[in-house]
Amino acid sequence: MSHNTFGHLFRVTTWGESHGPSLGCVVDGCPPGLRFTQAEIQAWMDKRKPGQSRFVTQRREEDFVKVLSGVMLDEDGTTMISTGTPISMLIENTDQRSKDYGEIARRYRPGHADYTYDLKYGIRDYRGGGRSSARETAARVAAGAIARKVVPGVTVRGALIQIGKHKINRNNWDWAQVDQNPFFAPDPEIVHVWEEYLDGIRKSGSSVGAVVEVIAEGVPAGLGAPIYGKLDQDIASLLMSINAVKGVEIGNGFGAAELSGEENADEMRMGNDGKPLFLSNHAGGILGGISTGQPVIARFAIKPTSSILTERQSIDADGNNVEVRTKGRHDPCVGIRAVPIGEAMVACAIADHFLRHRGQTGQSI
Amino acid sequence: MSHNTFGHLFRVTTWGESHGPSLGCVVDGCPPGLRFTQAEIQAWMDKRKPGQSRFVTQRREEDFVKVLSGVMLDEDGTTMISTGTPISMLIENTDQRSKDYGEIARRYRPGHADYTYDLKYGIRDYRGGGRSSARETAARVAAGAIARKVVPGVTVRGALIQIGKHKINRNNWDWAQVDQNPFFAPDPEIVHVWEEYLDGIRKSGSSVGAVVEVIAEGVPAGLGAPIYGKLDQDIASLLMSINAVKGVEIGNGFGAAELSGEENADEMRMGNDGKPLFLSNHAGGILGGISTGQPVIARFAIKPTSSILTERQSIDADGNNVEVRTKGRHDPCVGIRAVPIGEAMVACAIADHFLRHRGQTGQSI
Amino acid sequence: MSHNTFGHLFRVTTWGESHGPSLGCVVDGCPPGLRFTQAEIQAWMDKRKPGQSRFVTQRREEDFVKVLSGVMLDEDGTTMISTGTPISMLIENTDQRSKDYGEIARRYRPGHADYTYDLKYGIRDYRGGGRSSARETAARVAAGAIARKVVPGVTVRGALIQIGKHKINRNNWDWAQVDQNPFFAPDPEIVHVWEEYLDGIRKSGSSVGAVVEVIAEGVPAGLGAPIYGKLDQDIASLLMSINAVKGVEIGNGFGAAELSGEENADEMRMGNDGKPLFLSNHAGGILGGISTGQPVIARFAIKPTSSILTERQSIDADGNNVEVRTKGRHDPCVGIRAVPIGEAMVACAIADHFLRHRGQTGQSI
Amino acid sequence: MSHNTFGHLFRVTTWGESHGPSLGCVVDGCPPGLRFTQAEIQAWMDKRKPGQSRFVTQRREEDFVKVLSGVMLDEDGTTMISTGTPISMLIENTDQRSKDYGEIARRYRPGHADYTYDLKYGIRDYRGGGRSSARETAARVAAGAIARKVVPGVTVRGALIQIGKHKINRNNWDWAQVDQNPFFAPDPEIVHVWEEYLDGIRKSGSSVGAVVEVIAEGVPAGLGAPIYGKLDQDIASLLMSINAVKGVEIGNGFGAAELSGEENADEMRMGNDGKPLFLSNHAGGILGGISTGQPVIARFAIKPTSSILTERQSIDADGNNVEVRTKGRHDPCVGIRAVPIGEAMVACAIADHFLRHRGQTGQSI
Repeated sequence: MSHNTFGHLFRVTTWGESHGPSLGCVVDGCPPGLRFTQAEIQAWMDKRKPGQSRFVTQRREEDFVKVLSGVMLDEDGTTMISTGTPISMLIENTDQRSKDYGEIARRYRPGHADYTYDLKYGIRDYRGGGRSSARETAARVAAGAIARKVVPGVTVRGALIQIGKHKINRNNWDWAQVDQNPFFAPDPEIVHVWEEYLDGIRKSGSSVGAVVEVIAEGVPAGLGAPIYGKLDQDIASLLMSINAVKGVEIGNGFGAAELSGEENADEMRMGNDGKPLFLSNHAGGILGGISTGQPVIARFAIKPTSSILTERQSIDADGNNVEVRTKGRHDPCVGIRAVPIGEAMVACAIADHFLRHRGQTGQSI
Repeated sequence: MSHNTFGHLFRVTTWGESHGPSLGCVVDGCPPGLRFTQAEIQAWMDKRKPGQSRFVTQRREEDFVKVLSGVMLDEDGTTMISTGTPISMLIENTDQRSKDYGEIARRYRPGHADYTYDLKYGIRDYRGGGRSSARETAARVAAGAIARKVVPGVTVRGALIQIGKHKINRNNWDWAQVDQNPFFAPDPEIVHVWEEYLDGIRKSGSSVGAVVEVIAEGVPAGLGAPIYGKLDQDIASLLMSINAVKGVEIGNGFGAAELSGEENADEMRMGNDGKPLFLSNHAGGILGGISTGQPVIARFAIKPTSSILTERQSIDADGNNVEVRTKGRHDPCVGIRAVPIGEAMVACAIADHFLRHRGQTGQSI
Repeated sequence: MSHNTFGHLFRVTTWGESHGPSLGCVVDGCPPGLRFTQAEIQAWMDKRKPGQSRFVTQRREEDFVKVLSGVMLDEDGTTMISTGTPISMLIENTDQRSKDYGEIARRYRPGHADYTYDLKYGIRDYRGGGRSSARETAARVAAGAIARKVVPGVTVRGALIQIGKHKINRNNWDWAQVDQNPFFAPDPEIVHVWEEYLDGIRKSGSSVGAVVEVIAEGVPAGLGAPIYGKLDQDIASLLMSINAVKGVEIGNGFGAAELSGEENADEMRMGNDGKPLFLSNHAGGILGGISTGQPVIARFAIKPTSSILTERQSIDADGNNVEVRTKGRHDPCVGIRAVPIGEAMVACAIADHFLRHRGQTGQSI
Repeated sequence: MSHNTFGHLFRVTTWGESHGPSLGCVVDGCPPGLRFTQAEIQAWMDKRKPGQSRFVTQRREEDFVKVLSGVMLDEDGTTMISTGTPISMLIENTDQRSKDYGEIARRYRPGHADYTYDLKYGIRDYRGGGRSSARETAARVAAGAIARKVVPGVTVRGALIQIGKHKINRNNWDWAQVDQNPFFAPDPEIVHVWEEYLDGIRKSGSSVGAVVEVIAEGVPAGLGAPIYGKLDQDIASLLMSINAVKGVEIGNGFGAAELSGEENADEMRMGNDGKPLFLSNHAGGILGGISTGQPVIARFAIKPTSSILTERQSIDADGNNVEVRTKGRHDPCVGIRAVPIGEAMVACAIADHFLRHRGQTGQSI
């Protein structure tokens, strides 16, 4: 992983800031012959799109993805077919409001990258976080839409499982609920708790952190590598590459530290269908860095949005003590919109390892 | 990160299995003119070496590192000076006992990579976990010893902070204690708790997980990148590349999910010395993927050793239901020896980003 | 070098085909603080632009480069300053005429990649060569315009030195001539010879090959690496990555095969200014893969345009014998427009190695 | 290509200098299940080994390759089977004579990398060229021996076609001759010419350049990529990475510059067997960067050995004018031993692209 490119055979390069004319990505190494429509890509974009409820930023972006290269149109005139050459996708920024940021041009917002950008580059686009803005994640979701097509039969789904201290009840988990509420919550009982809680957060100009879980089903066994380039490692790397993410877990994650070997290791039996069967999935579908064929399970923690209305102590670029309040249109819980982004990252990692595995071993599914 | 090489400018390639004649690594891109001795490298190796207490595997390895290339001897005849060309290091395996493994040659040990190796490669070195063996981490520690020399003034230290459900009391944290007990515990009060607890685990042939914390002090500000190639991302990737690791956190980690923006974001003030000062370090020394100059803080969770004496249900390579007990010399808590390994990984990530930062920006410290 | 990205610290990813809506590139790893204007970039684009004389394709493209990210505008409102984040550049295709290609949609044009594309991908954009079109090189020239800014004091210039069997007289070499004729010829005496010769080629619907020489002056000593990642190797790789290139030389090149060690090795003396001085430059400014401080000299051979009006024997995608004539607007000598492309590739290689060298050694100039 | 690693899926990292204890390589990404013996590897090593005739260096090295990892022994006890994990190979240096070099420790030998090493690294192993020594190529040949096993049915063979001004007669080309003379000459008539010529060179302490041609037969169609990562580009890059190489050609190479489109483009017809047939192979088996299924043809030029007995003008590390004669045991024509090295590089490039192609497209042969 270097610079702004990730992946080894399925490679994604993203570019763009929140307040330039556009942003986008180049998906390179995509297998030829994949078929997808603009509408399919757009459906994933819409899931991430801002302004869809009062719990996310009120910035309004269409997030329409223009596919500029790497595809031919099928005879139906709408289906795109990948040609094997780089797929360039572009999304225009239509609702940036630079004036919102004038006041903080030289003031370092606590929790933001303002200070470190200035130290690193000596120059900084103060408008909306520049490259670190959550706008960039639109490009990831577009890339993820392609990645989902690479491995036949894979389904990658995410859900929000915690906001602040309020966790879902896993016994209530129902995938059908996820699209029925503004939180991607799989537990219908948590929705009102979160609504009330977040309304309070939002009205006070504060923010709060969250935890997202992503589950990939239908992942073929054998993807990954024993230690470097472990499938879980590359998933962790990509999830940690998302702005504001501070922790990543696979399967039991930190909970595994508390378990004994007997409790943690998943036992096996031959199933009635003559196929190997795991009796549990503490490993999160990955053993020794290689997928087992079980669902792959990853979680990540997103810190609270650092843009808050409360006045905080900071300094400015001239070395003065200042007080900073961050106005503008921000997400009270940026973790909500991280759900489709996490899905996209997991989809990209699986696509990449599928191609790598096929390359090294000649195995396909 | 691809295959068995990590790093971008400071690149490490490791090779070797637990039961071959030797293992090692190639450290490429090392700056010329670094000075180190065999004894310095060996000191780190000794920290990781098996057989040093009853709480770790009784396998005995000297882990003597032969430096085969990339250095010249100084006139003192003992100091090695890096020449800028690849540094190859080799460690012999002297105490492998393949007979210990005969019984599990075709049986898939629960929690191990046996099953996934067979699925992926169709061939598997059943002796001691092959490439996934903790033996491989000796090469990482050797590479880390070089990495520590790259950035002047950096100190990377780790400690064990949790075994099973027993966590240290952070108020007792004392680095001087870490080398005074067999657990790398920074809290002297936890030592007896862990001893008693692990003795029970060990005698019952069981195992347990753990959590390690690594802290790097003296990391220059500006290392990293805004989103891809974040310093925390590369640290997460490397920590997750260690066998048996299932979770990684930076700074507040998963705890950040429970906090408000006010609680989580670190405020700043100009210090009395005219330098910027953070009033807290919830971010773990990294903002927007870039180091702040504060200590870099990372944690990782290690699952319990999967090799246990208790009989577990599994299958064999012929599709039969079998019961598996894993005899041999195993660590009841593999997390203990993960401390120097985690240090090495963090040191490598920092060295790599130091060179990358210097390359892109021309800044040095 | 993998897929459509090249470079290690200064990395360029290009995308786009000749007959899509646009093409472009992402320049990643660019140092912050570089200053350039649209007009400066455009000047290099104009040099490569088609339709500027009767000796090149009559396709007309403005090749206006839109810079979409990675820069801030200086207060003058026209100077762009790089921020250190990815610079995305886009060039619209405005004059594609797909109808020109209908006839050859299923016929494999001899010398083109039609046949190999079909074998590799099973799908092929038959319009104008798709990804292999010389249109793609516009993106390279845009990237090269940025690369030229990375190393202070470097000048990269190219010239055409051979068309068909007609070579320039090196004694006449005059850089001032290069922009005074439609061939980038440094020898004024060859211009009329080439005009007459190419008029004949063009009228007969044929084509011919050429040789380009690129010279980089002001390259700091020390760039490169002893064997892998030699500066000459990366230059060779990039020049060979240009469509239709079939050979690359550094310094004496193939001529070195005929020389003795005495004739080939460049002797040295201390100059009157107290600086080391080479008495010749057979090495082309690179010894052991590392720049000497002398001018870097590279040459590359471009095969004749495969699109010719003469009927040639071929087959079609259905396995029939067919005769193929390639109509459309083609370059009778595609080597002419390769001059600015070769310059761009050498500039990119030097920029990349400058950053790598600075990263590994801490040296700057 | 970065640092000392090459290849994308089939990756080779080499290490070691001429005068350290050993040198070697790590072959990573090798498919599992390849079968080879020590003797097979050794046969290729022997072809490159010094001291086999009076026309090459009289240094004597066994060049015995120890395979340290990544393989299991088959039941026959001699056949190694690759496991898919990194294959580490080590070759001991047994005949280094550092005293030969004492005199030139601080004098820059013309044509050598002494001067540029000192500029780049500020430290230099003066013993025998350090990393730039032809000793390093032993590791390449070992890697190539594995690479030859990756693509079923591929044969990679090389021959020396020119020494000084003396070229072979291509009409005499007979592969059976190549192993019958000390020059790898495919033309029996040239052997006596070269013997007499090189004896003169050798006795006078001089040296001379050469040209090698490598031909790969049985390369499946479809390997490579349209522009970046062209098969010919990666071959060019690897051949140019060999010490002393100054030029690379594919197919017609520089000769293509002199041809017309009619002469250069290879026509096609359906063969009697119903398969596509090329009527010529000017392209050297690669069109648009992708293999056609014809033999792949590459050539490279090696400069004369810079180590010569004649006194040459130079400077030393202290800035004095000096005269340098290079004693020691050197090859009068280092190009001879470049034949097996060139073969190895082409074999590695083909292996890598085979795996990449299989990964991206799912096609196998």
